[in-house]
Amino acid sequence: MFMVRDNYSYLSHLECPKCELIYHSTEVQQVCSCGSPLLARYDLESLSKDWDPSSLKDREKNLWRYHELLPVRQPQHIVCLGEGMTPLLRMPSLGMDMSIPKLYMKDESLMPSGSFKARGAAVGISKAKELGVHRFIIPSNGSAGAAWSLYAARGGMSSSIVMPVHAPRITRDGCIAAGAELLLVKGSISDAGRMVAEKVKREGLYDATALKEPYRIEGKKTMGFEIIEQMDFEVPDVILYPTGTGAGLIGIHKALQELQEIGWISGPLPRLVAVQSKGCAPIVKAWEDQQTKSMFWEQSSTEAHDIHVPKTIGDFLVLDAIYQTGGAAISVTDEEISAEQEQVTRMEGSFLCPEGAATFAAARILRSNGWIEEEEKVVVLNTGSGLKYPRISSNEVTLLDPEEAWTS
Amino acid sequence: MFMVRDNYSYLSHLECPKCELIYHSTEVQQVCSCGSPLLARYDLESLSKDWDPSSLKDREKNLWRYHELLPVRQPQHIVCLGEGMTPLLRMPSLGMDMSIPKLYMKDESLMPSGSFKARGAAVGISKAKELGVHRFIIPSNGSAGAAWSLYAARGGMSSSIVMPVHAPRITRDGCIAAGAELLLVKGSISDAGRMVAEKVKREGLYDATALKEPYRIEGKKTMGFEIIEQMDFEVPDVILYPTGTGAGLIGIHKALQELQEIGWISGPLPRLVAVQSKGCAPIVKAWEDQQTKSMFWEQSSTEAHDIHVPKTIGDFLVLDAIYQTGGAAISVTDEEISAEQEQVTRMEGSFLCPEGAATFAAARILRSNGWIEEEEKVVVLNTGSGLKYPRISSNEVTLLDPEEAWTS
Repeated sequence: MFMVRDNYSYLSHLECPKCELIYHSTEVQQVCSCGSPLLARYDLESLSKDWDPSSLKDREKNLWRYHELLPVRQPQHIVCLGEGMTPLLRMPSLGMDMSIPKLYMKDESLMPSGSFKARGAAVGISKAKELGVHRFIIPSNGSAGAAWSLYAARGGMSSSIVMPVHAPRITRDGCIAAGAELLLVKGSISDAGRMVAEKVKREGLYDATALKEPYRIEGKKTMGFEIIEQMDFEVPDVILYPTGTGAGLIGIHKALQELQEIGWISGPLPRLVAVQSKGCAPIVKAWEDQQTKSMFWEQSSTEAHDIHVPKTIGDFLVLDAIYQTGGAAISVTDEEISAEQEQVTRMEGSFLCPEGAATFAAARILRSNGWIEEEEKVVVLNTGSGLKYPRISSNEVTLLDPEEAWTS
Repeated sequence: MFMVRDNYSYLSHLECPKCELIYHSTEVQQVCSCGSPLLARYDLESLSKDWDPSSLKDREKNLWRYHELLPVRQPQHIVCLGEGMTPLLRMPSLGMDMSIPKLYMKDESLMPSGSFKARGAAVGISKAKELGVHRFIIPSNGSAGAAWSLYAARGGMSSSIVMPVHAPRITRDGCIAAGAELLLVKGSISDAGRMVAEKVKREGLYDATALKEPYRIEGKKTMGFEIIEQMDFEVPDVILYPTGTGAGLIGIHKALQELQEIGWISGPLPRLVAVQSKGCAPIVKAWEDQQTKSMFWEQSSTEAHDIHVPKTIGDFLVLDAIYQTGGAAISVTDEEISAEQEQVTRMEGSFLCPEGAATFAAARILRSNGWIEEEEKVVVLNTGSGLKYPRISSNEVTLLDPEEAWTS
């Protein structure tokens, strides 16, 4: 009864990873009645017979090349701005500096809106459109708000974004330019989330909050597919990911499991590492205490906005991904983030975001304490562009008057 | 004697398009002794026998897929951040609004540094590295400075950037983060150019000013290759390009001519359109007066920084590209740019730069006056990301206090 699929998508149904309840994927769903996020399930058995990696060769260079494992059933519902197949770059100088010669960066700065958030928005909005949704609301630390606003504009949908007032300023511009309703909150992402929940309750809006609808994860999991395809189906040893709501890490883990099930990869999965800021590290605390869920992080603070999430309803899935793969969770200070950002840009020319820098800083620590070994193949996610984060340094530049003599 | 080539690059020699003097491509060259830019020439006859489009299929998704028609002879000199193969997107809603149903955008916002300038930097710096250059200097309106600084960092070279003080502020951060020497000038790009020329003369630096070295154009021409490949080797009717130094338009024209010569495309070339701002429109003035070169544009002013170039040494090549293809040159006001930017983002979700918006505004005008016909296939270049240009609108957002009642 739940097995609805055609040849474009092998989506079958939605499942609660906590209580195992099953839901239709043919109508709008939010979270499970038990409160857990729902996960999309595919007919992997049929797919493993019908599909092989060689079929990817002639496909477009965007994330829709994996449409069999994406939830959109009819291609005409796809809202696309060219997202995906971002570069996987060797980082030779930085790798030498860190003593990780096989260091790679998956560079999500080359995405519409300048952030990996475009993946979740593209798939989330395409599927919402297919299901007949016309309007949605999300809380956001900035980047997701901009991405979801822009894809909503492309898809002809209305969006409301609720953002902390301290989110990167340029992300407001993305929302406004796209015609979204933008509301700023004197408070954190948790305050924004609370206000969204109230508005959803009152107005019956579609709640596209991370993990409160099942399809954002599906977009994010394409990072996992791409890493594996770009490595010619050889599995790396470690993948490090900056972790806020955790949708990205959950997505990558899900992607790896799906590829394993259809037989495209084998052997142990990469050890997944969740990276947080010391000013907001609920997952790290839970992992250190060997818990299966996290506690709300009081008085959180960090300059790395996208990982400023005191509590996520997907915490148990993030922790599960870490435990199942023999991974880890680690936090870094804002000072370490800033120093690493400088290091990465100066050595490799990547103008990365603080969240990406946090992840490189974590790789450095895990190598120096031996958790990462020298010969291991390590992939670090840079989740977005540095263009969103103006720095103070630009005030200290020499100013020349063309009428005066050259003085350098 | 000048025919040096191997199988990776078919580069043969450099040629002056004005006086036809020929130069070695195996050593550092700047401009011709007559003052004209030099153009790279390839052994197209051999290449037409050795190369066909099917060979592109398995190549990496970046601009180096066209290495036969790029100047770098040995792949180990390539400095790559994953640049190129940016999306070519249909713009259905905007196209309907403008009555150009076959309207496309080549979206260069998905590039390292958030700008098409990465193309020139990648190829220019790779080739400079191959030729043994360790340090260079350029004047820049912002985006090129950031791109060249970042690629220099990746390639282990030293860079000096001279920028007008009014260039977009975030581009300073790219330069500083990459470790470039950054100098700001109270004045225009022409003042910056003059100061660079003095410094080059005094210190014997490599002058990487647009069109003063032969290889930046080679990087930019890959936009032409990609458009053609992404259109399955069918030639569009019109390509519109925001024009400052003109290196991009010259490059696209050169790409089309090369593809024609090796037999990959046939029939008339697309009509090339140079788009400028009314506040700085030397090419438009020259074209309207049917001149073959432009005059310095006095007291120039525009918010579209990358097309704020009062005089370019490549003016005769830009005008030649327009005349040869039956193209046009057109200017738009800053108000038209701003209105079109809003329109494009609201209708299609692209968070584009003012230069890209100028180009859409020009397409709208050329369609309404009949120069573009309804059934024509039209490609508009968006040269960069809107993330570099904070807008005033972000001050006018509703601010909510989470302690108070929801008031929307």
